[in-house]
Amino acid sequence: MARTSSHATGLRVQLPPLCFLFQAAIIILFSFFVRYNHETDSSLWHRSNHSDMDNDFYFRYPSFQDVHTMIFIGFGFLMTFLQRYGFSSIGFNFLLSAFSLQWSTLVQGFFHSFHGGKIYIGVESMINADFCTGAVLISFGAVLGKTSPVQLLLMSLLEVTLFGVNEFILLNLLGVKDAGGSMTIHTFGAYFGLVLSRVLYRSHLDKSKHREGSVYHSDLFAMIGTIFLWIFWPSFNSAPTNTGDGQHRTALNTYYSLGASTLSTFALSALLSREGKLDMVHIQNAALAGGVVVGTSGEMMITPFGALMAGFLAGIISTLGYKFLMPILESKFKVQDTCGVHNLHGMPGVLGALLGALVAGLATHQTYGDGLKSVFPLIAEGHRNATSQAVYQLFGLFVTLVLASLGGGIGGPS
Amino acid sequence: MARTSSHATGLRVQLPPLCFLFQAAIIILFSFFVRYNHETDSSLWHRSNHSDMDNDFYFRYPSFQDVHTMIFIGFGFLMTFLQRYGFSSIGFNFLLSAFSLQWSTLVQGFFHSFHGGKIYIGVESMINADFCTGAVLISFGAVLGKTSPVQLLLMSLLEVTLFGVNEFILLNLLGVKDAGGSMTIHTFGAYFGLVLSRVLYRSHLDKSKHREGSVYHSDLFAMIGTIFLWIFWPSFNSAPTNTGDGQHRTALNTYYSLGASTLSTFALSALLSREGKLDMVHIQNAALAGGVVVGTSGEMMITPFGALMAGFLAGIISTLGYKFLMPILESKFKVQDTCGVHNLHGMPGVLGALLGALVAGLATHQTYGDGLKSVFPLIAEGHRNATSQAVYQLFGLFVTLVLASLGGGIGGPS
Amino acid sequence: MARTSSHATGLRVQLPPLCFLFQAAIIILFSFFVRYNHETDSSLWHRSNHSDMDNDFYFRYPSFQDVHTMIFIGFGFLMTFLQRYGFSSIGFNFLLSAFSLQWSTLVQGFFHSFHGGKIYIGVESMINADFCTGAVLISFGAVLGKTSPVQLLLMSLLEVTLFGVNEFILLNLLGVKDAGGSMTIHTFGAYFGLVLSRVLYRSHLDKSKHREGSVYHSDLFAMIGTIFLWIFWPSFNSAPTNTGDGQHRTALNTYYSLGASTLSTFALSALLSREGKLDMVHIQNAALAGGVVVGTSGEMMITPFGALMAGFLAGIISTLGYKFLMPILESKFKVQDTCGVHNLHGMPGVLGALLGALVAGLATHQTYGDGLKSVFPLIAEGHRNATSQAVYQLFGLFVTLVLASLGGGIGGPS
Repeated sequence: MARTSSHATGLRVQLPPLCFLFQAAIIILFSFFVRYNHETDSSLWHRSNHSDMDNDFYFRYPSFQDVHTMIFIGFGFLMTFLQRYGFSSIGFNFLLSAFSLQWSTLVQGFFHSFHGGKIYIGVESMINADFCTGAVLISFGAVLGKTSPVQLLLMSLLEVTLFGVNEFILLNLLGVKDAGGSMTIHTFGAYFGLVLSRVLYRSHLDKSKHREGSVYHSDLFAMIGTIFLWIFWPSFNSAPTNTGDGQHRTALNTYYSLGASTLSTFALSALLSREGKLDMVHIQNAALAGGVVVGTSGEMMITPFGALMAGFLAGIISTLGYKFLMPILESKFKVQDTCGVHNLHGMPGVLGALLGALVAGLATHQTYGDGLKSVFPLIAEGHRNATSQAVYQLFGLFVTLVLASLGGGIGGPS
Repeated sequence: MARTSSHATGLRVQLPPLCFLFQAAIIILFSFFVRYNHETDSSLWHRSNHSDMDNDFYFRYPSFQDVHTMIFIGFGFLMTFLQRYGFSSIGFNFLLSAFSLQWSTLVQGFFHSFHGGKIYIGVESMINADFCTGAVLISFGAVLGKTSPVQLLLMSLLEVTLFGVNEFILLNLLGVKDAGGSMTIHTFGAYFGLVLSRVLYRSHLDKSKHREGSVYHSDLFAMIGTIFLWIFWPSFNSAPTNTGDGQHRTALNTYYSLGASTLSTFALSALLSREGKLDMVHIQNAALAGGVVVGTSGEMMITPFGALMAGFLAGIISTLGYKFLMPILESKFKVQDTCGVHNLHGMPGVLGALLGALVAGLATHQTYGDGLKSVFPLIAEGHRNATSQAVYQLFGLFVTLVLASLGGGIGGPS
Repeated sequence: MARTSSHATGLRVQLPPLCFLFQAAIIILFSFFVRYNHETDSSLWHRSNHSDMDNDFYFRYPSFQDVHTMIFIGFGFLMTFLQRYGFSSIGFNFLLSAFSLQWSTLVQGFFHSFHGGKIYIGVESMINADFCTGAVLISFGAVLGKTSPVQLLLMSLLEVTLFGVNEFILLNLLGVKDAGGSMTIHTFGAYFGLVLSRVLYRSHLDKSKHREGSVYHSDLFAMIGTIFLWIFWPSFNSAPTNTGDGQHRTALNTYYSLGASTLSTFALSALLSREGKLDMVHIQNAALAGGVVVGTSGEMMITPFGALMAGFLAGIISTLGYKFLMPILESKFKVQDTCGVHNLHGMPGVLGALLGALVAGLATHQTYGDGLKSVFPLIAEGHRNATSQAVYQLFGLFVTLVLASLGGGIGGPS
């Protein structure tokens, strides 16, 4: 899939030992540390007197499969809009994901489910592993075409690790809510990738800009990616939230937010067009911003009206980003954001984090009822008031931006 | 995506204000009227003592996601078989759907879940919103290539409204059963679109007929649409039916009906071919008629044998329609049915309505047992006998045909 | 879709009567023998006092839909990598599957759920019908391009029947465990197809080898097939297993096995490449071997480590097969394995059967706890010890290889 001779050599000489080394290390670490949890272990599950329907599998597996489709089909095909990188994007998307989901099982397991020296896994850890993989793929979108598969694997090794650190700080230490990952996935993945893209900047690549163009069939393949991401985003945001009304409400909010971001994207894209043609890159990307922007607040009581407003604004901001900010990023800041992840994941992710802080700050016992202990346990238990929860949410965004930027900066020379 | 200069002007000048206006109006109406229902509201859900698994989310969300895939991937890619409209069909499919699902939430909400001045929403309203969107996309298929995006949005505004009126008359006033929408979705969408296509008839378009041809890659993209529609149709018909045996039986009946319509379509297509080649348009469309034809009766006790018979006949009728009726519709009746929706949705929809009336007329307490109150509550409660239920079913079909034709007629000059 | 004139004649003259005959026979047999089971029949379901959530539909339907997607999208598009057969593969895949799922409902029903002269059906029989269809499609992959649609239908008629016989011997007579079908589906389908391919060998086809090449867009379409198979394989292996921890553990094991087979495939493919290019045929196929190899053992306590090891080895063996064994099969044994099913289904299937025997032989009460009666009922009830279960597993593999080879041999001249 690689084109240049140096790539070709790297592929044959460096990729195989690296893959074998990584896989061997993961297998050894699994043998020492990873065990079935009480819902996947035959002996542990049958020790208690459950109904089989109580198994978390039935609450989360359908949503997990939708997320899985987004990671492998959605991200993979979305990136084929660049005719030149069609194969590479699908193939490397596949390789990076297959590695990242294994490696993040270990990293996230050490941080979140390490008991008595063992990591216990089930469908919830599979969802989290796929989520972390999503962040890696966002970064991949920022550097597509500028890195070899070997560099991408090393990037994944670093990013998955830092993702786990950042997520641990936010969710466990700061008590921040971020079920759909506006911060931990989208903001983190985008700024990690953008800083890395800046570090990897080579001026001569600038000249090949015209080769970035898309063509007819590439656009149809990319639409496969776009639409699978769009339809399954309600499952993405709701997969890890509280069962019952939590998953239900999150899916509903995301559904309407995406509807509104699609309309505002079409409208603005048509308005800004010179030749009276819709720009397919806007449609393929900015229409998805509605899913990103409710990543933090989707499980909260933002109201259907709030979900529509959030999506509407996200579509506007994302489309403006593609039209006006992206050229500036490249010319002034030397950041070549191949897939425009700043517009789809970066800005809407930050906006989603701010929205989450706002909605958290407005939380009351009256609005949430007894569900407050599910959505904001620290408020329900009296450890915090809503305002301080909002401040923690903002601090979580700050930590994410710092760690992502540091990570991308370190990742460059490696 | 538009080609002609008048389209281009309309796109830049008319589409943005219309989209913004529609989205703004929807946001304002949502703020006044739309609220979480008792399964999506944190406070309401936690007021009662449920198991989380009792939340309707777990009964319907996986099926909803299959329906969602059909609307955005299925319908979207099916229409790419026309090379000339590949982009337009996917892009406008996306725009119309994102608008229609929001607008129909309001329209259907006013008719079906308006209590105390508020509309309450959850997964069931999401399914219904997607269903209404399906009717709009069927009509879109009849007028593909003859309308601008602005006209299509106006068509959706009207059609969604009339869809809600028709559905209200059938389900609420007439007590008609039509879970999978043989009448409310397929018949309504098809005849609305066909009458609209007749009104929009322009003779010079006739000459561009040869440009409607499909090509190799277009056909493979269209097969993505066909097959996603085909595999998820059992979920479409079962998504809104009664839980338990109701959803289970509906999915089963649809599965077998589709198997039979596929075989009869292949057989008849090969028989009618001149050059010994299967006509891909038959395969891509008529094979799906088995899903349409059990839209009304799928939840009833039609027996596995009945499902196979229904599918078998539907495949035959649909294929004959493509081969013999479609040219006549165009030459004699000046109806240019771009995607042949009359063959896939119109005739099989009417046949499905008739089949539903027949099966309803045969309903007995013995066959349904205590499930009679789920499938035919008015019969179980003694308000009707089976024969009068059958008559109401037929009257529902009549109302649907009248309202769809009126709607399509009105929609033309707008 | 067929190219040669003899094919064309066969298509018009032979295909229609055969399809009509088969469909008519199936409809008649259904009318006599096939009935709703107690979960799909209105009267039977409402006779007992269930919660609707106890209906098997909610345990298995989401997984069924994933399997359905694999059969129609996964297998269908995977075979489009051969540009020359793009259409044929999708179209015939569709026809064969629509026939096989109906016919296997009858055959499997006679063997597995024939009570009082009737076959009772529901979601579990739908899963089994799709599974049997999977075996037919594997065989189709071995003979793609060498047979007419009429021959393929006759092959399906025979293979579905023998599949039912083999499955009955293994599961019912020998008490073998094979939930994900390493033996009954993959090994059976592969060797049936390979022997058939040998019987159909014609030397002049050898010369058209160069026309088997793939092209850019074909490869992207094929990747749609590959990735849908890859992401949904956890659902495939877990769809028929015991509810609760059984389905959960099977999905988990398959997820990790596939991750490892993907990395080992990429590594080995890069290592073996001459020009420093990854071979797309390896990526598209061998990466899936991790799903095949845990088909038997996925529900057992193979541990996450064991799943990774199994996948790792399967990716290696499968890639080596494509590189070294496939040319030998053709030149020495005159087996033209068009899609390389020996490498993806044959060898990994046999390996999976051996792994299943090994893991069964290691089963203890301590490891499985009270779950032993679900996974190995004959051991839990004291009818067998673990070692004799392992021997039965091996004997099941032997029976499968014999029946598949006989079937493929008989199928040739027909």
